[in-house]
Amino acid sequence: MAQQNSVISGKVLALSGGVGGAKLARGLAEILAPEQLTVVANTADDFDYWGLRICPDLDSVMYALADLNDTERGWGLAGETWQTIAAMRRYGGDDWFQLGDQDMATHLFRSQALRRGDSLAQVTAKMAAQLGIGLRLLPMSEQPVATRVHSDIGELAFQEYFVRERCEPAVKSLEFSGLAQASMQADFAALLSDRELKAIIICPSNPFVSVDPILSLPGCRDALASAAAPVIAVSPIVAGLALKGPAAKMMAELALPASAVAVAEYYQQRYGALIDGFVIDSSDAQLAAQFRTLAAEVEVCPTVMTDLDSKVALGQACLQFARRFAN
Amino acid sequence: MAQQNSVISGKVLALSGGVGGAKLARGLAEILAPEQLTVVANTADDFDYWGLRICPDLDSVMYALADLNDTERGWGLAGETWQTIAAMRRYGGDDWFQLGDQDMATHLFRSQALRRGDSLAQVTAKMAAQLGIGLRLLPMSEQPVATRVHSDIGELAFQEYFVRERCEPAVKSLEFSGLAQASMQADFAALLSDRELKAIIICPSNPFVSVDPILSLPGCRDALASAAAPVIAVSPIVAGLALKGPAAKMMAELALPASAVAVAEYYQQRYGALIDGFVIDSSDAQLAAQFRTLAAEVEVCPTVMTDLDSKVALGQACLQFARRFAN
Repeated sequence: MAQQNSVISGKVLALSGGVGGAKLARGLAEILAPEQLTVVANTADDFDYWGLRICPDLDSVMYALADLNDTERGWGLAGETWQTIAAMRRYGGDDWFQLGDQDMATHLFRSQALRRGDSLAQVTAKMAAQLGIGLRLLPMSEQPVATRVHSDIGELAFQEYFVRERCEPAVKSLEFSGLAQASMQADFAALLSDRELKAIIICPSNPFVSVDPILSLPGCRDALASAAAPVIAVSPIVAGLALKGPAAKMMAELALPASAVAVAEYYQQRYGALIDGFVIDSSDAQLAAQFRTLAAEVEVCPTVMTDLDSKVALGQACLQFARRFAN
Repeated sequence: MAQQNSVISGKVLALSGGVGGAKLARGLAEILAPEQLTVVANTADDFDYWGLRICPDLDSVMYALADLNDTERGWGLAGETWQTIAAMRRYGGDDWFQLGDQDMATHLFRSQALRRGDSLAQVTAKMAAQLGIGLRLLPMSEQPVATRVHSDIGELAFQEYFVRERCEPAVKSLEFSGLAQASMQADFAALLSDRELKAIIICPSNPFVSVDPILSLPGCRDALASAAAPVIAVSPIVAGLALKGPAAKMMAELALPASAVAVAEYYQQRYGALIDGFVIDSSDAQLAAQFRTLAAEVEVCPTVMTDLDSKVALGQACLQFARRFAN
């Protein structure tokens, strides 16, 4: 990852869910020196499957940062094959969650390391380094947190809702099981009090199931508020739609209008005046004025990331936006 | 598996190692009704790898019985692919033992079931049934037994010797760690006192690392000797060579001549007058007279199994031979 003319000196923290957040993280990685950037991924959709520990968001970010992700399918590894799951079907084993044959190595390597006593951060760092990723990729927490979806068909584990039920059940509420006993991963927590931290970027990830688990970790909200760096959030809602995933559908079910403003209002209601600036898509420019009532700055720019150039451009926009809050 | 004209009524027990034993088991399965045949596989070469429980002999037999084995390569599944191990190499993970992508499902399904509390026999039965295997396939024991190879380069776990070191170190002695604490799998033990048992066939497997672990289980030798059925052993040495694997090389290292007679003498020295009849290959016909001194019957027939017909023919020969001991 070549360092381009950096628009910011000091350190940057990106908080990410899966695919959407991974795209912006990839853009930031192109702009910043590896030692400048830390990406913290949500782990509340982690789960056990086939006896393995699966960390979908962490892996999506890792694969995107290593340029190994499948950009056509939108998830998983490029050139993936599906022999193990086909053989698993012969045994009548679970097959609702698709694990590819290359992807399998990640889950096997991680699960074995965890059983041997590595922390999730340690094994993630080992794998990321082997894939040539120089920046720091961290899980939000070492303790298991599990998103539970209270839906019209009952309570579901997140991946049951997301993959097995294809987000079809209507969401009534979400619960992060284990959250109260979890703590922020140590390097993540330390970075928030680092004077060198110049920007905190909340990636365009699902507010309810990707960002909330991170921000709801004990002490996280206050540590973010106390950090010297501004908190910038990129809206995952563009022109009333979620680019990927169930964010817009969830907003409807949670009686929120699906708009970038409603996302900002939701964050303000839940976390108070935590977020200093919102990045919204050019197609939502007419909404900019509404952010004034939230006492938040707003940056309007293209936020739809379709290739590396657009990922880098959004990363640049976020960093330049953050600089405006400096002193 | 169609039942052909059965040459024997009642039950048959086959004791097997991996590939060679699996071939004869497949032949027997073609001849006998599923409820007649029990195959017990060696589990002393089982080991843990990538956090999974690997049972090479049990799987070789299962794959052969399901006609899923790769007959060209001689081990593993037909049509196998190798994506997971390639991806594991990216992480710097172990890659000395080749696990294919289809094969992986077996290890995942088994490991998960064992962690959930299934016995090895239970999960083996589940998988075998799903693969359409009607007969009973059993591990020799539920307790872990691990063959340790004392060699000229030090002590090795069996698969380290067999796969990683390609059988190159000279074997000084073998040890079956855990054997004293292990017991015969319950259905295996029960079958030996079943009056319906009409033949016990020791498949043409490696005497030292496949057959010895089974026969050395506490109580096994005596239970075999007390069984009503004759014990028939098929020589794994043909014309002074092992058809597959290191049996002949081991015999040289253990100062035994590589011959069918030496195998018989080895068994007699170790187990006394346990084996009632030996099946040797037609190419070793001139050795037949030497078995008289062992007080054992000998059957001379083609024992090299290259296709289903030759597997069935050897199975028929073994069963007809066993009938000669009736009353």
